[in-house]
Amino acid sequence: MAWYDLPLEQLRTHRTATQAPADLDAFWSRVLAATEAAARPTTLERWKPGVYGPTPVWDVEFSGGRGDRIRAWYLRPAGVAEDEPLPVVVTSIGYGGGRSVPADHLALPALGFASLVMDTRGQGARWAVGSTGDGPDLGPELSTVMSRGITDPEQYYYTRLYCDVARAVDVAARDLPGVDSARIGVTGGSQGGALSLAAAALRPGLVRAVAADVPFLCDISRAIRITDSNPYKEVGDFLAQHVDLVETAERTLAYVDNAVLAPRITAPVHMTVGLMDDICPPSTVFAAFNALEVEDRSIVVNQFGGHSPSHVHDELKLRFLRERLGLA
Amino acid sequence: MAWYDLPLEQLRTHRTATQAPADLDAFWSRVLAATEAAARPTTLERWKPGVYGPTPVWDVEFSGGRGDRIRAWYLRPAGVAEDEPLPVVVTSIGYGGGRSVPADHLALPALGFASLVMDTRGQGARWAVGSTGDGPDLGPELSTVMSRGITDPEQYYYTRLYCDVARAVDVAARDLPGVDSARIGVTGGSQGGALSLAAAALRPGLVRAVAADVPFLCDISRAIRITDSNPYKEVGDFLAQHVDLVETAERTLAYVDNAVLAPRITAPVHMTVGLMDDICPPSTVFAAFNALEVEDRSIVVNQFGGHSPSHVHDELKLRFLRERLGLA
Amino acid sequence: MAWYDLPLEQLRTHRTATQAPADLDAFWSRVLAATEAAARPTTLERWKPGVYGPTPVWDVEFSGGRGDRIRAWYLRPAGVAEDEPLPVVVTSIGYGGGRSVPADHLALPALGFASLVMDTRGQGARWAVGSTGDGPDLGPELSTVMSRGITDPEQYYYTRLYCDVARAVDVAARDLPGVDSARIGVTGGSQGGALSLAAAALRPGLVRAVAADVPFLCDISRAIRITDSNPYKEVGDFLAQHVDLVETAERTLAYVDNAVLAPRITAPVHMTVGLMDDICPPSTVFAAFNALEVEDRSIVVNQFGGHSPSHVHDELKLRFLRERLGLA
Amino acid sequence: MAWYDLPLEQLRTHRTATQAPADLDAFWSRVLAATEAAARPTTLERWKPGVYGPTPVWDVEFSGGRGDRIRAWYLRPAGVAEDEPLPVVVTSIGYGGGRSVPADHLALPALGFASLVMDTRGQGARWAVGSTGDGPDLGPELSTVMSRGITDPEQYYYTRLYCDVARAVDVAARDLPGVDSARIGVTGGSQGGALSLAAAALRPGLVRAVAADVPFLCDISRAIRITDSNPYKEVGDFLAQHVDLVETAERTLAYVDNAVLAPRITAPVHMTVGLMDDICPPSTVFAAFNALEVEDRSIVVNQFGGHSPSHVHDELKLRFLRERLGLA
Amino acid sequence: MAWYDLPLEQLRTHRTATQAPADLDAFWSRVLAATEAAARPTTLERWKPGVYGPTPVWDVEFSGGRGDRIRAWYLRPAGVAEDEPLPVVVTSIGYGGGRSVPADHLALPALGFASLVMDTRGQGARWAVGSTGDGPDLGPELSTVMSRGITDPEQYYYTRLYCDVARAVDVAARDLPGVDSARIGVTGGSQGGALSLAAAALRPGLVRAVAADVPFLCDISRAIRITDSNPYKEVGDFLAQHVDLVETAERTLAYVDNAVLAPRITAPVHMTVGLMDDICPPSTVFAAFNALEVEDRSIVVNQFGGHSPSHVHDELKLRFLRERLGLA
Amino acid sequence: MAWYDLPLEQLRTHRTATQAPADLDAFWSRVLAATEAAARPTTLERWKPGVYGPTPVWDVEFSGGRGDRIRAWYLRPAGVAEDEPLPVVVTSIGYGGGRSVPADHLALPALGFASLVMDTRGQGARWAVGSTGDGPDLGPELSTVMSRGITDPEQYYYTRLYCDVARAVDVAARDLPGVDSARIGVTGGSQGGALSLAAAALRPGLVRAVAADVPFLCDISRAIRITDSNPYKEVGDFLAQHVDLVETAERTLAYVDNAVLAPRITAPVHMTVGLMDDICPPSTVFAAFNALEVEDRSIVVNQFGGHSPSHVHDELKLRFLRERLGLA
Repeated sequence: MAWYDLPLEQLRTHRTATQAPADLDAFWSRVLAATEAAARPTTLERWKPGVYGPTPVWDVEFSGGRGDRIRAWYLRPAGVAEDEPLPVVVTSIGYGGGRSVPADHLALPALGFASLVMDTRGQGARWAVGSTGDGPDLGPELSTVMSRGITDPEQYYYTRLYCDVARAVDVAARDLPGVDSARIGVTGGSQGGALSLAAAALRPGLVRAVAADVPFLCDISRAIRITDSNPYKEVGDFLAQHVDLVETAERTLAYVDNAVLAPRITAPVHMTVGLMDDICPPSTVFAAFNALEVEDRSIVVNQFGGHSPSHVHDELKLRFLRERLGLA
Repeated sequence: MAWYDLPLEQLRTHRTATQAPADLDAFWSRVLAATEAAARPTTLERWKPGVYGPTPVWDVEFSGGRGDRIRAWYLRPAGVAEDEPLPVVVTSIGYGGGRSVPADHLALPALGFASLVMDTRGQGARWAVGSTGDGPDLGPELSTVMSRGITDPEQYYYTRLYCDVARAVDVAARDLPGVDSARIGVTGGSQGGALSLAAAALRPGLVRAVAADVPFLCDISRAIRITDSNPYKEVGDFLAQHVDLVETAERTLAYVDNAVLAPRITAPVHMTVGLMDDICPPSTVFAAFNALEVEDRSIVVNQFGGHSPSHVHDELKLRFLRERLGLA
Repeated sequence: MAWYDLPLEQLRTHRTATQAPADLDAFWSRVLAATEAAARPTTLERWKPGVYGPTPVWDVEFSGGRGDRIRAWYLRPAGVAEDEPLPVVVTSIGYGGGRSVPADHLALPALGFASLVMDTRGQGARWAVGSTGDGPDLGPELSTVMSRGITDPEQYYYTRLYCDVARAVDVAARDLPGVDSARIGVTGGSQGGALSLAAAALRPGLVRAVAADVPFLCDISRAIRITDSNPYKEVGDFLAQHVDLVETAERTLAYVDNAVLAPRITAPVHMTVGLMDDICPPSTVFAAFNALEVEDRSIVVNQFGGHSPSHVHDELKLRFLRERLGLA
Repeated sequence: MAWYDLPLEQLRTHRTATQAPADLDAFWSRVLAATEAAARPTTLERWKPGVYGPTPVWDVEFSGGRGDRIRAWYLRPAGVAEDEPLPVVVTSIGYGGGRSVPADHLALPALGFASLVMDTRGQGARWAVGSTGDGPDLGPELSTVMSRGITDPEQYYYTRLYCDVARAVDVAARDLPGVDSARIGVTGGSQGGALSLAAAALRPGLVRAVAADVPFLCDISRAIRITDSNPYKEVGDFLAQHVDLVETAERTLAYVDNAVLAPRITAPVHMTVGLMDDICPPSTVFAAFNALEVEDRSIVVNQFGGHSPSHVHDELKLRFLRERLGLA
Repeated sequence: MAWYDLPLEQLRTHRTATQAPADLDAFWSRVLAATEAAARPTTLERWKPGVYGPTPVWDVEFSGGRGDRIRAWYLRPAGVAEDEPLPVVVTSIGYGGGRSVPADHLALPALGFASLVMDTRGQGARWAVGSTGDGPDLGPELSTVMSRGITDPEQYYYTRLYCDVARAVDVAARDLPGVDSARIGVTGGSQGGALSLAAAALRPGLVRAVAADVPFLCDISRAIRITDSNPYKEVGDFLAQHVDLVETAERTLAYVDNAVLAPRITAPVHMTVGLMDDICPPSTVFAAFNALEVEDRSIVVNQFGGHSPSHVHDELKLRFLRERLGLA
Repeated sequence: MAWYDLPLEQLRTHRTATQAPADLDAFWSRVLAATEAAARPTTLERWKPGVYGPTPVWDVEFSGGRGDRIRAWYLRPAGVAEDEPLPVVVTSIGYGGGRSVPADHLALPALGFASLVMDTRGQGARWAVGSTGDGPDLGPELSTVMSRGITDPEQYYYTRLYCDVARAVDVAARDLPGVDSARIGVTGGSQGGALSLAAAALRPGLVRAVAADVPFLCDISRAIRITDSNPYKEVGDFLAQHVDLVETAERTLAYVDNAVLAPRITAPVHMTVGLMDDICPPSTVFAAFNALEVEDRSIVVNQFGGHSPSHVHDELKLRFLRERLGLA
């Protein structure tokens, strides 16, 4: 996908045209409070020491949005006492994927972080397995979730999922053994980047570092008009049929738009963007970045990059997390 | 898609290798009984006479699978008294679509049939709108439903949807004004064909004619291995990740496989099949046809047809419905 | 296809850059006069009452462009006397299709309209059958007609086809039983929309309502430069080889360009347009709409729509036809 | 396209299942006689010496099928007297193309052949220009001709086109200056290969060498069922809609099937075939080759070749033509 | 890609038809001896402790095929003395990729293995960076290497690359600090799987465990005829033009065919295969597996898997490596 | 590909933003001098008179870039003495192709030109065969060469290839029999057009006419950002991974950018451009054209043309070559 979005100099200043809903703060206070009220205790169970040997892994279950039970992996570095307080990074997963197996998540523990990898409700089937359904009696699905509940912010799928990640931060701070709750980071790419930004916006008192690669769900109203690629295109396909719901849906989307939520973030932010990314258009990523009010923010531009961040840039991200979370 | 499946002479005798579950009848008795127990009264509301003029249309809501409320359209021919008992055809919709607007369904009333068009829960967004979610608080979605609940026949999406159409037949027989309950037909293409076969198999005492075009959900275990096209491919994509669930998923699918359910059908059946259909492979359609035990059955072969039935063949279908339901 | 054409506010005022040929009126007077001079009587034959039951259908043949015989269906509402004068709607078909079977055209009779469905000469094979060749001894073809005769307006395929639809209006007004010739409407989508606009422009005294969905053949010189999709692309592919014919071909196309013909229309017009339509780019549709001089005109914008109009919008179209043709 | 057709050892013996029509010889006698009866004199006009310098080129027009006028190029080697009798090769063009400009046809004159390059009626727009329409008042088109007239062998497009090439051989033998009529060859690839085989079958007394690359229109009934590629697919697409015309169309196609006509050929034949050719499946090419009864025949197999013959094999073809036509 | 290859029961016994070259052993002895003769000392340089913290990483350079210098990463578990002898796993990379950054390779050290990740000469640009050219003065390339040197086994690209991995095993055994040379494993997917099998076949005395996912370069003569996907298709595309080189090229390919080399392997082998893998067809993977003569071998079949192994199966692979290399 | 680049009026004045490297002239002087110093004598061997008859053909080998031996064809018109001094045209080949067989190159000799057709090192496998590797011990490859050596202008693949074509001009001037060295032209399309422009820029004293169709390698920094098509996309794909090499690579590319080299050209230039060319975007072609300082220059615009020039325009090119090289 050649350069199809705004030129770089305009990207540097592009702002979303979406207005924050008047009740944005009240909405999230109410929804999060209800979520917390519905929470039950977090459980941990040790996972396959015969496979993971020195790196301890736990299968975690905690209460997320609507009180639904969410699965996760908790991993700790090899050779560290279980109760030694460590910085912890909450990882969220890209669209269609679930928490996979812990083998996919050994990098952070190898670098000295404790790590909580949150499953994605009702996804977990397209390229990595999950174990969490979008509600009781449900399991992982090969799903398309962009329009699920889109007519009502309270019922919207991403409202629930944002609650999940906010709760994952709570769990990291309070329920996991051996965590220094003053050193919590969040990370992920694409949908995982969206969830990381959302976690930082909804848990500004807890999150201390955000590393978001090519984040999804930013400047959504623009995105659904300028890209033909899924998952944004799901919204357009839905509205091409449900022609009377355009305004309603865009109202809902504003509550989960990270370009709208970004000013709530207080933690340092590290982002990446690909100027040839057709899945998360660069202008939408910059819309979130440019809306950040925190001073410690940086964005790495991959001029020829699509939606897959360059592995070379991963080292910058890891250094950022180590430095901001006190490991370097 | 050139001829890629079995040669025609082998199609004529091909039988599914899937065994009927030992508890197939008990399963459906139990599930349908629970469905009926959860049912609330059907409601009808007149719809836009300013648009439809002489053809009366009602917006219907009835209780389907799990007691969930399902929407439908009820249309009657112009110039016929509202209480004149007419033959009624229950129409089901293809994958991704919903009941659309009544304007899409004026053919059957124009020919003298009363017509009940059932919405598809949790679909209704891909090419035709719907108004029914897959459960309370949910609406139509741009969804992919093949793996939803696939690990448990009781929780599987298509178990619910089959209950919906069985209930739609009940509603046609009992709750709609001006219906001759001894003249109920079912029809539809692709997923709508699957639902028509299922309705006839689950309501053998009520359904008197089945017209199923290129039906989906037949000989499913074969289908998911020989076609690359959605929606069957959704199952393969799910199982390519959830490698440990292959046997479990195939066990569930057997309960909704129309090649397994076909012997329960007692009504005359008219089917169509395209030898170049990559979405519903011809061998899987023949597997259902060849499993029928009713004598009055016919299948129209489109040698060069894909998944869209030829409009020329529609006239054969309409004549079949008119003759079997006493209109000719 | 994301938004690739002009922004909506520019679409609202976009005008074609194509000039009307100096002899435009003279050209069409001469061509239509020759067409009428070559006409022979219209014939009607009753079609399959065993299939269509209460809705009477006739197989029609009339003289169109160049005197060639054109087939059509004539359908009347059930339960209405054959000689009762009704409003009649002339329907034209999209590119590649023919008149299909009458079963595809039962909606208008069900709403109380008489209906004449014109076959498309030399098409009728790609997605719906036809029975009319592009001249004697010829039959329906799986054809691509955009460049047929393109070097000469008199010989151009679409000149003939426009004459067909003008004659279909004449036939509706004069030759069909039970028509109120003061209540003639025209409708169709894509190529059918182009033919509807053309019919209204060439028979301004007869046509009283035009419902044109996503019409083709508007602002053609722009269209062939901004879309990669067929059928407009056929012209570009032809001219990429016949590099010396660009000017000649564009001169021909001006005679059949509905953005050029639109000022001749006197009937109320209802149009639809999809902002993501890559087949009939929105700017070209607006070019025709903005060139209309009739006051009673409306255009329904589907922000996320491609080339398939939303079924939801069909109800607006049907209401428009009912109101303008005196059925509501 | 990986190996998808029969294994090589079965290709070596594969025969078409299509029966020769009982009246095949009578049909072609009658059609060719009518063609000759309608013929008018051939004309030649010198073409652009400023471009072609030493190689003389003429723009030719002759009477082909149905008496329609067909264009061609006549080229002669540089430095040879205009009346020196030379071997002449009649070249036919692949699907969609026309005779192009003479610059595309300088290879044969450079090797010492006179050369007649026949235009393709009603094509000549897709990748090379032409100047010949499919009838008077018509010009080259970006067309799809496979179903034009397919319901009647007399009216079928390829019957006319076969007459054109038979007449081109007559013209080469009688009307061109400086030709040794005992040394006429025919050549071409794909559709051009089909026309070369047909010319040899319809003019067995005149054609002395046939070089047909990956020929089209062989074992057509098989081809339309085993490949998804155009132009064979045009027939399947047509018949997928015109479901009642399958038998009729296949009857027509038998008259122009080179696997049926092959036994009439008396000249030496050189063919090429690609085992990965999805446009002209290898079994269909072998069906024609295996039906040849002439002893001097050879087929060059490109194991990994698609529809574009290897240039390396061109040298074999040229050597064949030189040897069989007395130039080596 | 639906099931397109042999049925599973035939896969279980399928053997390659390719004969081992008579001089296979002599060839590899000679080539490997020359490789060793050209070797210079291995160098190690510590890499970015600020990023990798507790996990030590070295940038390695060693002499591979033809004496060319090859880059690699050496990683050791956190919290283990640098000279503690550990089992070591040599990892090879898939087609188009290079060694990437060490962050991509932290899983094995986290489980207690030392790990040597070999760069891929002349690749390292398509999805993961490399630092090694295919010869001096050359760097990583976005390349296609399947036909490089294919006319001569001595000059063939994969001969060099196989020498690289054989040398990597030597380096692991002799040049790296803290390795137990009796516990060397090899692993990789696709091209990395091919290199792992090759390493075990060329260094049977050193390699003690082979974990090869969906390995490439097995039963190559079959693969290039039954799949349309790159990189195998590169060979077919080359031979479609170089028609005279088919035999020559296939002779070369036999020397690097793992279905031919497999009997030389003495270490336990764990493989995975996807029955819907169009890049490395399942029959070719089984051809290598079925040619193994070692008793301790296993193959995990993913019935619906394409070329990406399921992450779920990764845990089986890791357990295999831990058990065979004495970590469990 | 619809019009996606600048509008025609802006194309007419578009200039590249790439600056000429300060040492551009010194670089090329040094590189070309080294090339000449490494040269060995040219050899000619007669090729297959049995195929080519009156047109004499030689298989040529000469020393190109880095002293590597390059193959070529030398063809002379039929019927001309071998030592008669003729104008000669050096032809270069498009990306992926090699010199093919002489049969592909008979047009120029037929028109009276001597012709030298240069093979393309390390290509010659994708659509036409070659015989020249990119260095000793190497042969033709199915390759992708855009990033080979891209970090260093001295080592860059295209530096070598440009030296090849400069040397081919030298060879035409000095080493071939029967050449009038004052009448040397260069021609080719795409990569062949790039090489033709480069030859004229690097050998301004020898080249007297340049005919470059849709030339590649112009305004490269723009091209790699505005097109998604290969081969330009290879550079973007490489830099999407090698994110730290963007500046380095663009510095290298400036040395071979024909929009930078164009002012060095002194010969008349004839170019073609397609406004729908997605492979060599029209703005990049115009960037080279607009940078020409020679007065005798012309560019033929194909408004609807893609990357394949219209054959109709070929006659203009041939006339240009004949006139500028003294044949008309």
